[in-house]
Amino acid sequence: MSESGIRVVHYGLGPIGAAALRMVADRTDLRIVGAIDVDPAKIGRDAGEVAALGRNLGLAVAADAAHVLAESRPDVVVHCTASFLPDVMPQLRAIIAAGANIVSTCEELAYPWTRQPALAGELDALARDRGVTVLGTGVNPGFVMDLLPLVLSAVTSRVRSVRVTRVVDAAHRRGPLQRKIGAGITSEEFAQKAAGGRMGHIGLAESLHMLAAGLGWELEDVTDTLEPVLAGQQITTPHVTVQPGQVAGIHQVARGRTAGGQTVELDLSMYVGAPNPRDEVRIDGDPGAHLLIPGGVFGDSATVAIVANAVLAVQAAPPGLRTMRDLPPVVAGS
Amino acid sequence: MSESGIRVVHYGLGPIGAAALRMVADRTDLRIVGAIDVDPAKIGRDAGEVAALGRNLGLAVAADAAHVLAESRPDVVVHCTASFLPDVMPQLRAIIAAGANIVSTCEELAYPWTRQPALAGELDALARDRGVTVLGTGVNPGFVMDLLPLVLSAVTSRVRSVRVTRVVDAAHRRGPLQRKIGAGITSEEFAQKAAGGRMGHIGLAESLHMLAAGLGWELEDVTDTLEPVLAGQQITTPHVTVQPGQVAGIHQVARGRTAGGQTVELDLSMYVGAPNPRDEVRIDGDPGAHLLIPGGVFGDSATVAIVANAVLAVQAAPPGLRTMRDLPPVVAGS
Repeated sequence: MSESGIRVVHYGLGPIGAAALRMVADRTDLRIVGAIDVDPAKIGRDAGEVAALGRNLGLAVAADAAHVLAESRPDVVVHCTASFLPDVMPQLRAIIAAGANIVSTCEELAYPWTRQPALAGELDALARDRGVTVLGTGVNPGFVMDLLPLVLSAVTSRVRSVRVTRVVDAAHRRGPLQRKIGAGITSEEFAQKAAGGRMGHIGLAESLHMLAAGLGWELEDVTDTLEPVLAGQQITTPHVTVQPGQVAGIHQVARGRTAGGQTVELDLSMYVGAPNPRDEVRIDGDPGAHLLIPGGVFGDSATVAIVANAVLAVQAAPPGLRTMRDLPPVVAGS
Repeated sequence: MSESGIRVVHYGLGPIGAAALRMVADRTDLRIVGAIDVDPAKIGRDAGEVAALGRNLGLAVAADAAHVLAESRPDVVVHCTASFLPDVMPQLRAIIAAGANIVSTCEELAYPWTRQPALAGELDALARDRGVTVLGTGVNPGFVMDLLPLVLSAVTSRVRSVRVTRVVDAAHRRGPLQRKIGAGITSEEFAQKAAGGRMGHIGLAESLHMLAAGLGWELEDVTDTLEPVLAGQQITTPHVTVQPGQVAGIHQVARGRTAGGQTVELDLSMYVGAPNPRDEVRIDGDPGAHLLIPGGVFGDSATVAIVANAVLAVQAAPPGLRTMRDLPPVVAGS
């Protein structure tokens, strides 16, 4: 951590936020100047200790965001608190009002223009007015199922379809993720939770709409299907044991089609024991293209990396609400 | 081709330029308004006929660039004439003076800042002064060995090395390319031509420097090695027969190292009969990343696609000399 450098405040010190703090602390061009979290177990403790940095930063975690922002005058706020845009709007408004750029892991912020046009428009107007940049990013949404196929499309033409497949073996992921995808519950429990809207990956629709918008496609027919993947045999992870017939995780597919018959399909499988984990993009066109990331981009550490790497990008970008498709490539920092 | 749309002039109607014209002619948002070539066999003929479009465009190919540019008032010139920047500087100066943006396949223009800083600076100043954008692009340089690893680096951190491998089976490529890589000549002839600087892929060094600059790395130690690949058995293509022991093509490696020991390596094999053709990026870091394009991005049709797709990008970009790393993603047009 540098004494000079871009001033960064961390807003949210859950697992991803804490890992982002550790990565930012390691950068010589970035400087942590504040930390915000509402968890009573974290308030008042040193941010370095809370984030398991291995050293203190001389900065106490505080719940009063407006006060921290006013005192620390950040250039960029790394925002890792929640997934749904309406939930984080008050936080984002406060950060913008304080004149700081934002890099956020809020999934619905990755591309809010289609599903949350009013909130997107408000954020864009506020950000332009205050001269700051707001960006939602991450691995998914933000990279593998939206930015990467758009980048690959550069070498294609007359595109008829884009299909992205992401297979995650959740056995190697955090316990909270395994619980989030329902590993170890029954298919009845899964159906109940799914009916209540408490199942499924957040951000798949945002990736679909970012991808379509990037290609200049207007989707007329959009579907999002979610089903449980049931375990064929017992699977034991450090966090859960899944019996045969129980839920191992999710299979979720978002599809869209233009009036002209062009199609986008995002096919996401996240379950414990998933074979052949990978990210794969297939573009059918003249010419088309095919790209593979064997093993898949690892969700957590890579999300933290792209968030930390995006700090310089939002600092350099023109004001407004931006998405990954609007910015020059976010690259690894040194 | 639209009656409205972005006005495009094609400068250079060789194999790539002609294919670019055909792709642009297919786009509803682009409109071809002129064609320039110095080949006496093409001058005066209809551009559609020269480019084997299958229909006339009502535009005669002309050699007088200044006249065509002044008459046709293009928004963007698609420039496909030569590989070396000094050779094309007069052409680029004339296009900029005419107030048109440029998308060029000139390999040395893909990232001229390190090896041709004076010419890069001149182009940048001229372009800013005239309010136009200049971009060199293509598959290689311009995509697989520079932009793609930079984009992938977004999900990595603490990068120690970037290695890009491109293997092209030249048996499936154009005859001129097979001759360019020396297919069918002896190793003595190869050595003579290489000593005369007439062998090897143009643009590998530009990719190396774009990649390093994108990562913020200063390379202290740069090498570029070129060797022939000799055929182990007879290989026959539609264009050439290579006897055992004769040259099948090239193996070229560009390497760079920072003072801190970080390394970039671009490893290019182009020869007839090359097994396992692919593009592959390996980033060693915490986390690292690994990306594979099975079969490899096909050079010719994909180069034409990225050139046509970049027309909208240069039209939208701020004035100046730009490289692929400076622009938001170039995407497939409709």
